[in-house]
Amino acid sequence: MNDRMDLSELKSILDNRRVSAGESVLGLHSHDESFHAASLPDVVVWPRTTEEVSLVIQWAGRHRVPVTAWGAGTSLEGNPIPVRGGIVIDFSEMNQIIAVRAEDFQADVQAGVIYKELNRALACEGLFFPPDPGAAATIGGMIGNNASGIRSVRYGATKDYVMRLTAVLPGGDVIRTGSRARKSSSGYNLPAFFTGSEGTLCIVTEATLKLAGLPANFMAVRATFPTILGATTTVHHIMRSGLAPAAMEFLDANVVHALNQDRGLTLEENPTLLMEFSGFSEQGLREEMTFVEEICRGNGSLAIDKGIGSEERARLWEIRHQTYESIKRCHTGLSPLIMDVAVPLSRYSEMVAFSKNEVRDLKAYLFGHAGDGNLHVHVMDDPQDRKRWMRVEEASRNIVAKALEFEGTCTGEHGVGIGKIRFMNQEHGESLILMKRIKGLLDPDHLFNPGKLF
Amino acid sequence: MNDRMDLSELKSILDNRRVSAGESVLGLHSHDESFHAASLPDVVVWPRTTEEVSLVIQWAGRHRVPVTAWGAGTSLEGNPIPVRGGIVIDFSEMNQIIAVRAEDFQADVQAGVIYKELNRALACEGLFFPPDPGAAATIGGMIGNNASGIRSVRYGATKDYVMRLTAVLPGGDVIRTGSRARKSSSGYNLPAFFTGSEGTLCIVTEATLKLAGLPANFMAVRATFPTILGATTTVHHIMRSGLAPAAMEFLDANVVHALNQDRGLTLEENPTLLMEFSGFSEQGLREEMTFVEEICRGNGSLAIDKGIGSEERARLWEIRHQTYESIKRCHTGLSPLIMDVAVPLSRYSEMVAFSKNEVRDLKAYLFGHAGDGNLHVHVMDDPQDRKRWMRVEEASRNIVAKALEFEGTCTGEHGVGIGKIRFMNQEHGESLILMKRIKGLLDPDHLFNPGKLF
Repeated sequence: MNDRMDLSELKSILDNRRVSAGESVLGLHSHDESFHAASLPDVVVWPRTTEEVSLVIQWAGRHRVPVTAWGAGTSLEGNPIPVRGGIVIDFSEMNQIIAVRAEDFQADVQAGVIYKELNRALACEGLFFPPDPGAAATIGGMIGNNASGIRSVRYGATKDYVMRLTAVLPGGDVIRTGSRARKSSSGYNLPAFFTGSEGTLCIVTEATLKLAGLPANFMAVRATFPTILGATTTVHHIMRSGLAPAAMEFLDANVVHALNQDRGLTLEENPTLLMEFSGFSEQGLREEMTFVEEICRGNGSLAIDKGIGSEERARLWEIRHQTYESIKRCHTGLSPLIMDVAVPLSRYSEMVAFSKNEVRDLKAYLFGHAGDGNLHVHVMDDPQDRKRWMRVEEASRNIVAKALEFEGTCTGEHGVGIGKIRFMNQEHGESLILMKRIKGLLDPDHLFNPGKLF
Repeated sequence: MNDRMDLSELKSILDNRRVSAGESVLGLHSHDESFHAASLPDVVVWPRTTEEVSLVIQWAGRHRVPVTAWGAGTSLEGNPIPVRGGIVIDFSEMNQIIAVRAEDFQADVQAGVIYKELNRALACEGLFFPPDPGAAATIGGMIGNNASGIRSVRYGATKDYVMRLTAVLPGGDVIRTGSRARKSSSGYNLPAFFTGSEGTLCIVTEATLKLAGLPANFMAVRATFPTILGATTTVHHIMRSGLAPAAMEFLDANVVHALNQDRGLTLEENPTLLMEFSGFSEQGLREEMTFVEEICRGNGSLAIDKGIGSEERARLWEIRHQTYESIKRCHTGLSPLIMDVAVPLSRYSEMVAFSKNEVRDLKAYLFGHAGDGNLHVHVMDDPQDRKRWMRVEEASRNIVAKALEFEGTCTGEHGVGIGKIRFMNQEHGESLILMKRIKGLLDPDHLFNPGKLF
């Protein structure tokens, strides 16, 4: 990139100040939360409007410079690392909640809004945006990734909440696609198609999001079990019981140990389920709780900690949301490889048992959104130690292969990024060719987030 | 089409008997339930396997013959009418439920399965496939159309239930896309993209469907109101109350009159809401019912008929599911033009009032899936009477224009087919160009359901 001249052109687009090729800026935009090797962009820009994003992309197209969108850098699979350099478009200055239309259960937001900020703004309306990946992710990043998290068992993933998108295509054309109607059968579903495309087809600048009503009552349950199988069987029994959990999380004993150690807690270090139920009637929830307890005890539960109300709920998720950070802090200097397989529910117990065995010689933590069949195997190790890291990668390959054998997926919610590219052919077969053809149609020069997905 | 030679080739693919160019067969496949003019195909085929569908499509590609998929012919917008002739692929011999995986909340089905048959087979497992358009639609047709119906307010549309598809592309390539995992962030979401594409991008032969658990308890409520506004305001209040209705249907007094006349009922001929609530706890439902009644009375409800249990529920939907047929039977010899707009919830009352006024001089019936903001305006008239029919079409244009002004959609669930093509540019703007480019990529010869969508 012939930077001097080009940067002056870029600077004229972004009123001089919102363009930087400073060393620390480039460094901050060279890696996400994963172990994947950092890679510096040539320049970072901070647009404030869709028009500015379009102008930047037009410029990139003329100069054949790669373009990678950047939300908060919290992804776990190298998704926003600019592996071919070029421009990183940082959305932190596009962080406006444009409108909350409470009566429509909708919000219009710019892509740089942090979803937790959105939920804070929505709480007073009795509404929320359900996908909840935990980190301080932006809406744009969540759309890129089709993020989901703890409540997807009841509420679904980001794709289920994207009604309308404003997006910039390679070349710089701006489209607005979708509708503010809650349902539509009009034309091809581009919002659903773009959600999860990891910035390889378009760059989303604004979205109309569907919102859900905050339930009137919550019930939180933490149950521990003597064996992993007791916990995973309970998942299955509860899902088949007619109950509709709002969250259903599994943690193995190692995870609980890490939480105790890092947070000074004294939780029983056993396989654990964290569950949330919610509904209109408190009396109804109490009936459900009795039933949940029966199922847990039937599977040998050792201890059940339960409570009704928002505070109990907050206490439960405070534990869960610290998992990633707590594990990291227990292993300073090591990097995480986080597997993210998802399998049909009936295979979840087998998947967990297989994975546990596969990582028995590693610093490994198993947890996941069990109600969705989503399992994270979180291994801490040193990527510089080639021999050890090859062992970690071997475990990852074997675990993904098993998930695909179960007709599952190599990534339930973290996206393909860099680390899952190797599994795409195995998972998608002939349909991968079609994905590549569509990518080639929209982005023939492969300028949008190159080196990802394919 | 050089039919003699070609048919013999087709017959060799479909063991001689599952190919017909007989007059009555062609006639039966020349129209759906809409007013749109019939158009005869050249030949109808009944494949039994994906491979046979692929061979037929390869043959069609070689001979440049249009191909249109046919489910049950129950669509309402001309979607499967073979307007350019060619082959109709009738899926009635691909009607196998391949597997019900109750423990995974999944079923694998061929595209010709009638969804009501599927739900009968699932009931003993305590499961169901939620989209419920009413007619005897096939799963393939519902996928083509992204059908939804009365329960989408709680459960969403067909797109939310398609996990994996086997589909034949133009040219005959077979792809399987999607996963059996409940969630995935792996690659582009082709199943969501194909759902609702009305057979213009691929022809779906098999699907893995997500299922929902049948709730333990049901509550059915029928409430009548002195004014339409009372009814539509109630919709809004209930949706914003924290209650989660499983169905929320609006009928105007004309619809109730037609039901009374056709079915010998004695329902109060007033604007009416039909609602279903469901949940785990009967006690919880009773609390909800008290609250629902309060809201209805607060909006001036004249009469509330309510009940708990499956029988009460069946009695309620028996009424609703007859609507289409009852209206038709009240106007023998006339044809229906059915509008299908959907708007943001806050605009629903205005949309209904505007529509009511727009069709005041016509034989018009207003009803719809109010909880989704979906309104059907069903007008009976004679398409041969040009002057009258132009008036009907004018009303349709004005109603769609108003829905688009409200940032809604020209079709909530019936699809674009023939009748809504004229609104596509207005609704989609620049993104329509992208849709056409993707269509051109997959089907450059425009052989798949030509004359639809674009």
